[in-house]
Amino acid sequence: MGEYMEIIGRRAKEASKRLARLGQEEKKRGLLIVAEELRRKTDYILQENHRDVEAAKERGMKRSLIDRLELNEQRINDMAVGLEQIAALEDPVGDVLSMKTRPNGLQIGKKRVPLGVVGIIYESRPNVTADAFGLCFKTGNATILRGGSDAIFSNKAIVSVIKESLCKRKIPQDSVILVEDTSREMVRDMMQLREYIDVLIPRGGAGLIANVVENSSVPVIETGTGNCHIYVDEYANLNMAAEIIENAKTQRMGVCNACESLVIHSAVAEQAIPLILARLKEHRVEIRGDERACGYTSEIVPATEEDWGKEYLDAVISMKIVDSMQEAIEHINRYNTGHSEAIITENYRNALRFQEEVDAAAVYVNASTRFTDGFEFGFGAEIGISTQKLHARGPMGLEALTTTKYIIFGNGQIRM
Amino acid sequence: MGEYMEIIGRRAKEASKRLARLGQEEKKRGLLIVAEELRRKTDYILQENHRDVEAAKERGMKRSLIDRLELNEQRINDMAVGLEQIAALEDPVGDVLSMKTRPNGLQIGKKRVPLGVVGIIYESRPNVTADAFGLCFKTGNATILRGGSDAIFSNKAIVSVIKESLCKRKIPQDSVILVEDTSREMVRDMMQLREYIDVLIPRGGAGLIANVVENSSVPVIETGTGNCHIYVDEYANLNMAAEIIENAKTQRMGVCNACESLVIHSAVAEQAIPLILARLKEHRVEIRGDERACGYTSEIVPATEEDWGKEYLDAVISMKIVDSMQEAIEHINRYNTGHSEAIITENYRNALRFQEEVDAAAVYVNASTRFTDGFEFGFGAEIGISTQKLHARGPMGLEALTTTKYIIFGNGQIRM
Repeated sequence: MGEYMEIIGRRAKEASKRLARLGQEEKKRGLLIVAEELRRKTDYILQENHRDVEAAKERGMKRSLIDRLELNEQRINDMAVGLEQIAALEDPVGDVLSMKTRPNGLQIGKKRVPLGVVGIIYESRPNVTADAFGLCFKTGNATILRGGSDAIFSNKAIVSVIKESLCKRKIPQDSVILVEDTSREMVRDMMQLREYIDVLIPRGGAGLIANVVENSSVPVIETGTGNCHIYVDEYANLNMAAEIIENAKTQRMGVCNACESLVIHSAVAEQAIPLILARLKEHRVEIRGDERACGYTSEIVPATEEDWGKEYLDAVISMKIVDSMQEAIEHINRYNTGHSEAIITENYRNALRFQEEVDAAAVYVNASTRFTDGFEFGFGAEIGISTQKLHARGPMGLEALTTTKYIIFGNGQIRM
Repeated sequence: MGEYMEIIGRRAKEASKRLARLGQEEKKRGLLIVAEELRRKTDYILQENHRDVEAAKERGMKRSLIDRLELNEQRINDMAVGLEQIAALEDPVGDVLSMKTRPNGLQIGKKRVPLGVVGIIYESRPNVTADAFGLCFKTGNATILRGGSDAIFSNKAIVSVIKESLCKRKIPQDSVILVEDTSREMVRDMMQLREYIDVLIPRGGAGLIANVVENSSVPVIETGTGNCHIYVDEYANLNMAAEIIENAKTQRMGVCNACESLVIHSAVAEQAIPLILARLKEHRVEIRGDERACGYTSEIVPATEEDWGKEYLDAVISMKIVDSMQEAIEHINRYNTGHSEAIITENYRNALRFQEEVDAAAVYVNASTRFTDGFEFGFGAEIGISTQKLHARGPMGLEALTTTKYIIFGNGQIRM
């Protein structure tokens, strides 16, 4: 373990103690001043971001990735608006979720408290820097940010603006610490820092997430990958099915709640496929089907075994034909990533059974999988979408960044 | 990864799908028949247990450890009673914790569901076998049990009785699987079985727990070690303090919620120490103090740095004198294990500040730390006491063995 990361951990832990005691108004004012200063320092941030963009171009980075990296006035304003929205949310810290009096007179309450220190490991988008800080700060946590090397100048600029703003409010600068050394060793050290980091949240591609999940001894909240299915039941309203499929696949292709696979009941396949194809063709979506699907039209190309488990994040979708609801559920539970799954049906019993038996964070009846999102669920914020079962599952709002503590009021009780 | 553990994982996962769909009555009847059969097969279980005990004696195992390993009619009856109590508890599975309608008409509910497959890694006490099965089964989970090699014949006997009983109720035998190969490789393989095991719970000594926490890529719930402090404030009722300290230290010495360290405010040390000593001497508890504590009486022996972080689980306690509440809190937050901490005080402000600033699963005012326990907290059961912050913190009842799933009822909604 390198000393560099150990020092960062210790400083963050120290700051977290102060943060846990900040009042709701102090945190709110802290977020608002950061928003104000980000807008005021727009030129400085853009100038530093320009250095990252130039360097990326020189290295020959793909246009789509440069788009994610590049900031402009609008995007910086969006960051500020994001922080203002977080400031306006209800603060979950300090809520006593339940309090009971035991027969011996002990009053036992369960109180919501900050986690402590949250580590975020992410890739190129610099807006995550402001956003992750905002959510962690609102919940009284210190944040250690390890962004990608591509965005290092942008991240340094944003974090320095945050630190200066907090300073004006006499809030510890170490409330947010950027890991400026972007070598892989630092990620490795961060994953072993159990003494100081309470939870690690990786945000990014499947490779990044798998690395953290497998190698971290710090507890991890796994986010992200979504191989989401839509099952068109034999009792589906087929026009509704086609409309929902078009939306779930094409409304935004590169996101984890987009639909990547269709499962169609054979009783309705012949009628359903032309309706679905008509919708998807408009968006130039390639369909890869099993043998039976390919039998309906030459416009469907053969799928390989690999296709069933694939999160395309692109204009491709797979299609499997099944003869029963049972088969559909088995296929989905075998290949899904525990994110979002939907059934289209007018049949009451099938609707409930699908919701019961499909193992995923969000299971829909007659709606698009694209709704799996903290804002769409009404949480007002989102730190990611958990695809694991412990602590948090599905879209994570502010509460996922807290834990609880039992507070017990006695008057001399001893155990008999 | 060995094939042996992979097969166990796959079978448990398969069984977990059936278990998740069992009704509350079926699970209740399953637990009751297991209890009945354990009583009926007492002779068989005792005979197999005898083989373990004989082998342990031959290996020269310590008497206290043999005590933990040895069963008798009473202890088997206790296991059965334990299962009957679990059967009588309210079943948390299927509860919809909240359900809201969004502006677009989507109804989004959060439903409590089983985790899936729970792995328990434990040491010599065979009663854990029946107990862990009971809690996991009640919550609709399949269980993989990896007990210690010392208790292998006892565990095999208990698990075979459970399997036969479940069979009579047409419940899958793989609802509980004992890892009969007790080599270390099996533990290592179990910790990598992310595909099939949803959570690992280590129950046992600090070494076992640390090994699992550090090396498992399966999510872990950390339980157990408790370096619990009692702080005697300058505004303490000193008789109450002495009584609570006696109880917390001596009512049962070998448990994680026993008090291991005293922190005494200097303003009351001279009066408090004789009262505390009188109580602890009756139980032959050795007191290891800092320099100032030793200055009050020669009956206190000097503590070393190592003592502050130690969970003795024995007739020893450490004592530190502080000049302020601030110093007490800093000492406790530095050395505690996040389990249970108490303040004895009549001062309102100090009581609340201690509860606010001490970082632990349970923070007491004027009561014994010995109450940190699922039964004492009114949960009616306990799978362990979590000292981590994610998922569950403090005593874990049935709810800690569940997760949630979002169920969404739509009527054609698509995202705009």
